Amino acid sequence: MPIVDVHTHIYPPTYVELLRSRNTVPYVRTFPEAPDSSRLIILPGEDDPATPSTSRGRPIGPEYYDIAQKIAFMDQHKIDTSVISLANPWLDFLPSEEAGEAAKNINDDVEGLCAKYPGRLYAFGTLPLSAPAEVVVKEIERLSTLKHFRGVIMGTSGLGNGLDDPALDPIYAALQKFEQLIFLHPHYGLPASVYGPRANEYGHVLPLALGFPLETTIAVSRMLLSGVWDRFKKLNVLLAHSGGTLPFLAGRLESCIKHDGHLKQHGKTENRRDVWDILKTNIYLDAVIYSEVGLKAALNASGADRLLFGTDHPFFPPLEEDAEDWHSVMANYSAISATFSGDEKAAKDVLGGNAVRILKLDL
Amino acid sequence: MPIVDVHTHIYPPTYVELLRSRNTVPYVRTFPEAPDSSRLIILPGEDDPATPSTSRGRPIGPEYYDIAQKIAFMDQHKIDTSVISLANPWLDFLPSEEAGEAAKNINDDVEGLCAKYPGRLYAFGTLPLSAPAEVVVKEIERLSTLKHFRGVIMGTSGLGNGLDDPALDPIYAALQKFEQLIFLHPHYGLPASVYGPRANEYGHVLPLALGFPLETTIAVSRMLLSGVWDRFKKLNVLLAHSGGTLPFLAGRLESCIKHDGHLKQHGKTENRRDVWDILKTNIYLDAVIYSEVGLKAALNASGADRLLFGTDHPFFPPLEEDAEDWHSVMANYSAISATFSGDEKAAKDVLGGNAVRILKLDL
Repeated sequence: MPIVDVHTHIYPPTYVELLRSRNTVPYVRTFPEAPDSSRLIILPGEDDPATPSTSRGRPIGPEYYDIAQKIAFMDQHKIDTSVISLANPWLDFLPSEEAGEAAKNINDDVEGLCAKYPGRLYAFGTLPLSAPAEVVVKEIERLSTLKHFRGVIMGTSGLGNGLDDPALDPIYAALQKFEQLIFLHPHYGLPASVYGPRANEYGHVLPLALGFPLETTIAVSRMLLSGVWDRFKKLNVLLAHSGGTLPFLAGRLESCIKHDGHLKQHGKTENRRDVWDILKTNIYLDAVIYSEVGLKAALNASGADRLLFGTDHPFFPPLEEDAEDWHSVMANYSAISATFSGDEKAAKDVLGGNAVRILKLDL
Repeated sequence: MPIVDVHTHIYPPTYVELLRSRNTVPYVRTFPEAPDSSRLIILPGEDDPATPSTSRGRPIGPEYYDIAQKIAFMDQHKIDTSVISLANPWLDFLPSEEAGEAAKNINDDVEGLCAKYPGRLYAFGTLPLSAPAEVVVKEIERLSTLKHFRGVIMGTSGLGNGLDDPALDPIYAALQKFEQLIFLHPHYGLPASVYGPRANEYGHVLPLALGFPLETTIAVSRMLLSGVWDRFKKLNVLLAHSGGTLPFLAGRLESCIKHDGHLKQHGKTENRRDVWDILKTNIYLDAVIYSEVGLKAALNASGADRLLFGTDHPFFPPLEEDAEDWHSVMANYSAISATFSGDEKAAKDVLGGNAVRILKLDL
């Protein structure tokens, strides 16, 4: 059974070029103080002029855009196949009239990368969400005709108003019709104020460790509360980072829905698909949670047939410069071994079998 | 073995009187449109004049302040002993010069309530956190001499700058010295903007189900990152709602700390007590998570000897008007039965044994 990584990002050359052409977040910039290294600055909070340019954002090297490095990383970690996706912030920032063409170019670029390594690479496509809905729908249809695409990656912003926006319905309808799964991934985090006045002392820890997962949880909860899955019963979503915090909070979410006075008044507490039903019918979870405790909760919430191995490459690189194994990857491998010790079949499903089945990979 | 509820709130008469005397959040108000029912409005978002007064905040009835109703609720649900605590927002909003006296009065009021029902009631005290540190420290010392207090309840704001504020050190020192546990409870939630433009359609669901737990998680992570537990190795904290999301995110938090460039530069990734160590040494979790999935994660993170049954009474009242059992309580009982089926000793510990041992209850 192959090992398949469903959470692994690429900034293909077309996209890096686009980011280099910009001078506001998100962008790639080489500062005069360090002419040999470029910085990738994607979050508004990272572009504070008070921060030395050499610690703004993160260094961007070939592991971000050189597909040969992705393959080398896969070989190092015994990963047979990767389903690559553009990393955040995708094309959310583009003016409406530029988005359609940019998405097409980037998706074609990625399709070309996949074609170079038969059997090793598949992809989730990028949508031109700032373009008119018909442009987005057309790209979804086109992606379904390309050999290596198996869904799309989306942030939590949707068309700008979140994933509970009814204006997304034609897009959800097209994704359902063409059987393209949504890989839902955070980017915007939470307002900096929530981390308090000393947050900078803790580097990126609070936004990355807590803000990202909650962003995902809010987004998927809004989809659920707005009835997306009542209207699109076959719309499938793969949640990044094992669902953010959804497996842990599903019981509280369900309880809060049942007890809510406003929802009760509007007849919305009864006759609905509950959180657990949607977790076991429409939601898949990656296994990127870095602990046995977390992974077991994800497993208990979704079932062993809905969990999929991932790495979040190229983020969280090795802790020591000369290390070959990535600690972040090994942490997720260990969590899987520990969680499924004694059930080799389930372990293999999570490591690759589920991805092959769910994404219809020709391996 | 008794059943002990460690998460159960009271607005003692002294406190209700204080809230009735106010006309901005937090306050209790009777609107002319509904002269027979009072509303408790505690969150800024709940006081929108656009919301009809009869759905602002929540109705406040005797279950909030009448201790006889607490006892009746306990009897109905076979709870032997409750460790009652003032509900949010405590005294966080009071001017500095009023806080000390108010805390004293409220704590004395609660001590009196406990004395009325020997063996049935203990309490977590309320601190005058807006008062000078020495006033707070004095109240901590005084609480340690009162018969029924076993710790203090605190929100996430501390002295106004969060629980990673070094100005809290004398207070943490006093709590450690007098062996008073902190019951850490959310109140402030997250800014309304994070829930998107349609949030009002979902009642209180998003802030209650997701904002509260994340607030707790951020607060405890800030304590940890600022080294509170390196300075106060015996400071114990009971986290509301099974830790917010800490059990699920502990692996990601630990991984983000290890990988953080800024923390690495400052030598703060090594030689520190890690998240798991603190979870098993300084942190207790209540069992208020409404699902087996969540409770098992809490158990796996903290151990069966650190989980404590709770109800969150008087919040989440019965779903049907004539129901005697509270659905919210039964959900937590069921999660405990399911999680510990086959391990009666552990179930009894979580239901009461741990509370008796940890809080030194004379039962």
